[in-house]
Amino acid sequence: MAEEFPPEALAVFEEIKAARGIPDVNNFWKALAVDPALLRRTWESLSAVMAPGALDPLVKEMLYLVASMTSGCAYCTASHTAAARAKGMTPAQYGELLAVVGMAAETNRLAEALRVPIDPQFQ
Amino acid sequence: MAEEFPPEALAVFEEIKAARGIPDVNNFWKALAVDPALLRRTWESLSAVMAPGALDPLVKEMLYLVASMTSGCAYCTASHTAAARAKGMTPAQYGELLAVVGMAAETNRLAEALRVPIDPQFQ
Amino acid sequence: MAEEFPPEALAVFEEIKAARGIPDVNNFWKALAVDPALLRRTWESLSAVMAPGALDPLVKEMLYLVASMTSGCAYCTASHTAAARAKGMTPAQYGELLAVVGMAAETNRLAEALRVPIDPQFQ
Amino acid sequence: MAEEFPPEALAVFEEIKAARGIPDVNNFWKALAVDPALLRRTWESLSAVMAPGALDPLVKEMLYLVASMTSGCAYCTASHTAAARAKGMTPAQYGELLAVVGMAAETNRLAEALRVPIDPQFQ
Amino acid sequence: MAEEFPPEALAVFEEIKAARGIPDVNNFWKALAVDPALLRRTWESLSAVMAPGALDPLVKEMLYLVASMTSGCAYCTASHTAAARAKGMTPAQYGELLAVVGMAAETNRLAEALRVPIDPQFQ
Amino acid sequence: MAEEFPPEALAVFEEIKAARGIPDVNNFWKALAVDPALLRRTWESLSAVMAPGALDPLVKEMLYLVASMTSGCAYCTASHTAAARAKGMTPAQYGELLAVVGMAAETNRLAEALRVPIDPQFQ
Repeated sequence: MAEEFPPEALAVFEEIKAARGIPDVNNFWKALAVDPALLRRTWESLSAVMAPGALDPLVKEMLYLVASMTSGCAYCTASHTAAARAKGMTPAQYGELLAVVGMAAETNRLAEALRVPIDPQFQ
Repeated sequence: MAEEFPPEALAVFEEIKAARGIPDVNNFWKALAVDPALLRRTWESLSAVMAPGALDPLVKEMLYLVASMTSGCAYCTASHTAAARAKGMTPAQYGELLAVVGMAAETNRLAEALRVPIDPQFQ
Repeated sequence: MAEEFPPEALAVFEEIKAARGIPDVNNFWKALAVDPALLRRTWESLSAVMAPGALDPLVKEMLYLVASMTSGCAYCTASHTAAARAKGMTPAQYGELLAVVGMAAETNRLAEALRVPIDPQFQ
Repeated sequence: MAEEFPPEALAVFEEIKAARGIPDVNNFWKALAVDPALLRRTWESLSAVMAPGALDPLVKEMLYLVASMTSGCAYCTASHTAAARAKGMTPAQYGELLAVVGMAAETNRLAEALRVPIDPQFQ
Repeated sequence: MAEEFPPEALAVFEEIKAARGIPDVNNFWKALAVDPALLRRTWESLSAVMAPGALDPLVKEMLYLVASMTSGCAYCTASHTAAARAKGMTPAQYGELLAVVGMAAETNRLAEALRVPIDPQFQ
Repeated sequence: MAEEFPPEALAVFEEIKAARGIPDVNNFWKALAVDPALLRRTWESLSAVMAPGALDPLVKEMLYLVASMTSGCAYCTASHTAAARAKGMTPAQYGELLAVVGMAAETNRLAEALRVPIDPQFQ
């Protein structure tokens, strides 16, 4: 399938494979190759965002997963669930993460439905 | 202001104040008092979801914050940012959390815009 | 304020005032006057959608309110809450409507987060 | 398939089957069994929210359906469309419900796009 | 398949086929036939909105596509991507459009997460 | 107010001011300064995305505006409406853009509510 991609895209694929130690990139990157500049920019930003820092890598991955679930992206939910498991997310942690996602959805909606004014101490 | 609330709501307010060691409940709970049964159910579910478990309390709070930011709830974003800070979120952690929220928003949207098929290994 | 609007917009305002028996139109219609054709089309579609039919007028108004709450539109939530009350929504009905909105937000999010396959009997 | 589920989940399944008079639970409940505490809490909250009250059961089901359509949950839309039909929703009522969902989506978006200030009488 | 549709729906189908010069209408219109009044209203509004005007037809189609991608509608994204290509959208334009959709998703989310106050010059 | 910002943030502000020929940056950039690395990355990505290319600058700005309106970001809607006007968007073009946003919101929601299968020619 590689011959379908322009050289600039293949170069990014090689960087992703090297950084992750995987034999092939997943479909998201192949789809982004329709615009090699977008592909490169997205990969470089993602690498910077997910690099080691003040947050534990598993925590960062779980935050990404919660954002993906909340925005309703099926592809992202599937890929980041797999990534979080690979980084050590236990079934119990997954269960609690789901509970937070569900609870937040409910209280987010209720706070907006009731148009609750922000308390001074939260400003 | 207390006299405006029905006794069932005031009873929940007392539980919240006791559990959190605070002198008054925030506006979200007062708004929910329009339906005391909904108020009680929401408080009891929230207490169960946020109780100590497999996830660190600060992590759980940051997951809640990311969900609130992603669903675009201003009230919830304000209150859970304050709660995460109270539980120890540092400015550096907050910066990284924001970066994840932004990055996830971008890749979530791109994955959907390109209708990327889910890779077999993520199923 | 009327002199700021083009004649085609003022004509729609008159139709709205006559249909609703009100002395002035609310801000939504004034804002739509930036494009009189859009204003007219929106008013005519809304009139057709909300006309008497198979659903009770209050039920229709509550459905509109739930859609507005779920999509997070503060203006629409405020205006349709007022409209539902004007059509007879009781405080108890409002409380139950809120509970449905919150519960649906939670289960909608969980069903998507878990990527639940649709049961054959629901197809 | 039952042997895959923990006893706490199976106990909730029995309650659901008894309450609804059905031979098996639908996929949503099986998926939630990844966290039996979340499964139980969700079922108990849903039972409370959908219990007989100030709103007619069919109306409540249609409100749930509109919320599911508006939040774009395919699973929930499928299951609540089936549930509303089972409770008596006619084709004409379904058509009007769809029209409200579409109309609300349009006016919600326009009100936000135009950043319409909330009229004093709606506050 | 035509015999399944009521005459009012078939009449709209004929108008669509004549206006677009196509042998059959796409699935969206067939699905809308559950409510022929909704079908007719939607077709007439769409025709008015997409008619020649101040915006170039390809630009209008790309705006529609961006809205569809941003709201996460897979069907609409597929159909409007095809329509934009039929109206002349080049691969380079498609790549740039995707980049805008992704960038906007990121900055939209960050602006809301940070609750940025609107600058006076933007009011 | 400048003395509140770290030097890395001030350096980005200078780049923005120089690139845009403006005396001060708008609130979005100041808010992003909580994480200077995020600020720099966002500015550099935005510059690349909005640089001259296959799409006309005004078209690109209108696509950004439609995405902002559709995702319901008030700040972004305000700032990109101003930017589109500065790049030459006429009142008639703005009216048509709004009409597309509203129409897309309606048809996006209906296509999802009806779970319309994607036609083979759109795949």
